[in-house]
Amino acid sequence: MRINAAYAAELLKSKDNILILTHDHPDGDTLGTAYALCRALRSLGKKAVVKCPDKIPASYAFMWQNLPEQDFEPAFIVAVDIADSVLLGAEYEAIYKDIINLSIDHHGSNNLKADYILLESDAAAAAEIIYDVLMELGASLDPAIADCIYTGLSTDTGCFRYSNTSARSHRLAAILIDAGANKDEINQVFFETKSRVYAALERLALDSMTMYFDDRLAVITIVQEMFRITGANESECDRLSALPRQIEGVLVGVTLRETKDGNFKASIRTNGPLNAAVLAAKMGGGGHAKAAGCRLDGPLEKAMEVLLKNVSEEIAP
Amino acid sequence: MRINAAYAAELLKSKDNILILTHDHPDGDTLGTAYALCRALRSLGKKAVVKCPDKIPASYAFMWQNLPEQDFEPAFIVAVDIADSVLLGAEYEAIYKDIINLSIDHHGSNNLKADYILLESDAAAAAEIIYDVLMELGASLDPAIADCIYTGLSTDTGCFRYSNTSARSHRLAAILIDAGANKDEINQVFFETKSRVYAALERLALDSMTMYFDDRLAVITIVQEMFRITGANESECDRLSALPRQIEGVLVGVTLRETKDGNFKASIRTNGPLNAAVLAAKMGGGGHAKAAGCRLDGPLEKAMEVLLKNVSEEIAP
Repeated sequence: MRINAAYAAELLKSKDNILILTHDHPDGDTLGTAYALCRALRSLGKKAVVKCPDKIPASYAFMWQNLPEQDFEPAFIVAVDIADSVLLGAEYEAIYKDIINLSIDHHGSNNLKADYILLESDAAAAAEIIYDVLMELGASLDPAIADCIYTGLSTDTGCFRYSNTSARSHRLAAILIDAGANKDEINQVFFETKSRVYAALERLALDSMTMYFDDRLAVITIVQEMFRITGANESECDRLSALPRQIEGVLVGVTLRETKDGNFKASIRTNGPLNAAVLAAKMGGGGHAKAAGCRLDGPLEKAMEVLLKNVSEEIAP
Repeated sequence: MRINAAYAAELLKSKDNILILTHDHPDGDTLGTAYALCRALRSLGKKAVVKCPDKIPASYAFMWQNLPEQDFEPAFIVAVDIADSVLLGAEYEAIYKDIINLSIDHHGSNNLKADYILLESDAAAAAEIIYDVLMELGASLDPAIADCIYTGLSTDTGCFRYSNTSARSHRLAAILIDAGANKDEINQVFFETKSRVYAALERLALDSMTMYFDDRLAVITIVQEMFRITGANESECDRLSALPRQIEGVLVGVTLRETKDGNFKASIRTNGPLNAAVLAAKMGGGGHAKAAGCRLDGPLEKAMEVLLKNVSEEIAP
């Protein structure tokens, strides 16, 4: 049953012993939304805990500061920012996929099974939705809650840079700053800091960048050896995917990442009219208009051959 | 005479043939503020032009699109975002420094001579101030004006990432987006695009990065040869200054840039408690708590010696 924020708040008011689930490989939005809700529910005298299928990176530790552990049998289960049960990870999926009571999400593709679904696909972040729920709950926006919501909002919008950022996003940011959100420290940690391992990998990645087709295609190649040299792991490649497309004049930016079996994953980003999903589909992949991906068989020379052939067909004047 | 936005609007209403001056090495804020004011004045039936002491980069061309040239003898001169007459450049300084009627700025250090001064040092951008002036003028916020103001606001706040970003900044951004500001294209041009020349220089700069004092000091060195290799010029170094401080654990990030005479300019950025201005002052420079600069005599070995000695004294546990 699709519901709105006011309905979700009424539901939550009537419940106690609430378990809040985040998705795996947790990011700022799933965690910020979950902890904002958890803190608000506790401030209203309820028992509530957050559970995450994966280890949570230390940079998010401020979210559960001064939040004592609580042990109880869950009576109401809320999923936040989880578009599909597979994002619960195998273990949690087996336990929870059929017993979620309320799903709060902003992914248009959401197909999670839940009794009640609060889905706003035009929200830049689940954090925008949880703010409305909290206001309907009558929870007060203390600085710790404002920090959680600001983290979700800023990380899902690339600090208000991505095209999903709306007037609503900026209005909420203003409210959170007025409520005492520690925006400077949060921005510093999430947007101004590179781990040494990431910085080393980025350097190698930039050194590998090669231009083709009158500089309209830029390709970065990450081979397994680079992970060994830098100590980086594949999760650090996500940020690299943005780099080739940033070069002025580039229409297609591709990041080729060698997998352990010697084949390649290609992340495709496009500028202007060129459709990344169409290009990826030609190579057996898929995605969105500006960001898509596919797999290419190794070795590198073979992967490049397939990539160049397909890009040349799409990029031809 | 210090005035507020309402007073500035009344002044402007009573004038015509208005010349608006920007600072040299123009950025998004001085240009966006100037063109927003120019467009608003014209929409009210006045003659107004913008003059800039330097060539304006092509990325700002949208600001004067559909704005016909006007030729007139200036009767009222407005300076925007100009903290000191030296920022007019030698030629304009000689002509205008003593005849500016209205100065609109957000630099606390402003010492420009003007009959009327509208100075708000807590504004993140001059663009925030000009918005208030335009509203007091009764000008309508059309999409072209919203583009200009959004450009000033976003470029001076690093797209809402820098610590000068306030609730006011975000509230204004929301208003501008509602008014039709082309935020996606502006963000793409100013925050997601690197010129090929800059990208090449950045690669060499990152390759030059060296760590000292248990990785608490990171130093990037730009030598003249790098300008020759890449075709970059010194103005492109500004963005590089942010890079060394971004590495996790770094307390002091320094960018050394060789000048044509073989000496060095040091850009100093700090994290945490370390004061960049104090460190710069020890080497004959100055600046702000987190960002400062100084000059160091070459050759490089000598400059590094002075830098390492002074950093070691400040960084010592």
